Amino acid sequence: MSLTLVFVEAAIQRVPDEIKSHPQIKRYASKRHKSPDEILLDRSFHHSAMKQLSRTGRVLPEKMGRPDIIHNALLQVLETPLNWENCLKVIIHTQDGQLITINPKIRLPKNYTRFVGLIEQLFNQKRVPLDDEPLLTVEEVSLEQSITRFAPSRVIGLTRLGNPELLRNVASDIAKVPNPMVFIGAFPRGHFTAETNRLMSQTYSVDKRPLDTWIVAGRFIYEFEWSLGIAEKRLT
Amino acid sequence: MSLTLVFVEAAIQRVPDEIKSHPQIKRYASKRHKSPDEILLDRSFHHSAMKQLSRTGRVLPEKMGRPDIIHNALLQVLETPLNWENCLKVIIHTQDGQLITINPKIRLPKNYTRFVGLIEQLFNQKRVPLDDEPLLTVEEVSLEQSITRFAPSRVIGLTRLGNPELLRNVASDIAKVPNPMVFIGAFPRGHFTAETNRLMSQTYSVDKRPLDTWIVAGRFIYEFEWSLGIAEKRLT
Repeated sequence: MSLTLVFVEAAIQRVPDEIKSHPQIKRYASKRHKSPDEILLDRSFHHSAMKQLSRTGRVLPEKMGRPDIIHNALLQVLETPLNWENCLKVIIHTQDGQLITINPKIRLPKNYTRFVGLIEQLFNQKRVPLDDEPLLTVEEVSLEQSITRFAPSRVIGLTRLGNPELLRNVASDIAKVPNPMVFIGAFPRGHFTAETNRLMSQTYSVDKRPLDTWIVAGRFIYEFEWSLGIAEKRLT
Repeated sequence: MSLTLVFVEAAIQRVPDEIKSHPQIKRYASKRHKSPDEILLDRSFHHSAMKQLSRTGRVLPEKMGRPDIIHNALLQVLETPLNWENCLKVIIHTQDGQLITINPKIRLPKNYTRFVGLIEQLFNQKRVPLDDEPLLTVEEVSLEQSITRFAPSRVIGLTRLGNPELLRNVASDIAKVPNPMVFIGAFPRGHFTAETNRLMSQTYSVDKRPLDTWIVAGRFIYEFEWSLGIAEKRLT
């Protein structure tokens, strides 16, 4: 019994070509002794440059450039009893169409700057570490193809626009299917794209206000653990 | 009905006097255009300097210098239905004896660097912002005195060394008393000091392995919400 958690439309990507020569990007990259090709887009540092991102692409600029969302969300789900009991797979599908696969054994950097450095290394090398069992890999593959690999028995999503339902019920219900997959958006505002929506059989809203990605993810993992009886098992 | 959550022995403090003139601290401060008196101790950047911290003081060096723990924990508890329903107070008591009081209306910086800057400003000014209703205040006061102000009807703590109990039971039990207070340690390793232990009437362990501060805090808030029926109330 294992849950596949998918962070979808994740706002973690390299700087798009169209703003690579913006002075703010060039200054930031040179300060970090990197090239603009090697750095993550980050609204905290690239706000002015991001104003020049075109709105005609697939992803709206206001959904982009927030690697801290994935960092916080991963910190909330990886060091959990669910993962320690080998019942969790976590993948990330980015806004620019990359699939990041996470080895459950990874010990994630708690410090944000180090985390960003690690993901930049990942995008450059396609895997880290290079010389041992990979803890992170990245490849260009569509969300639909990514899902197919895991052959989930059911795919659901958590979104403000879904069917109102208690998180406890959502988790206990999905814990009954053999190979469940759950989508959680990893972007700062807005909603799933039509393309993402097409891939889920059901969506749920667990509060009347949008919740941060890391809060929904942490709560879902906890309730899923509970449905599997993991807390009792580990305490006795 | 309101929960007071106390992050105790929090590893968020200014650089101790004894290492202020260490080259690593001086270099880091000058890079940030600040004086060594104004910066937070952070193991990610001050590891070598921290090796020279004496082990004879009250707090062991390995418990110190992790502002990211409080950042992550606050991100997990403040933007929650429990807080939105005005049922949560959060305070922080630091390893160097400072009480930080948080206005529930605060919108915390999501970016770590900005968070550190905000706390540095707080330690320098004693409140932020200076010219409006304070969102954060800090004062030198013992943990015992801090508690007295809130007149809790019961004080419990979550620690690996506590009585094994399901988190669900701990939360539903404490939600029955009128003015409960919960201690969660905000340090990277080790246990509560004897002084902290003396202030709790009961302690609980909710897993056989230590859980990160932000995970325990997020899970506790969620279960406490559930005990108050907040999720149902907000969905209907």
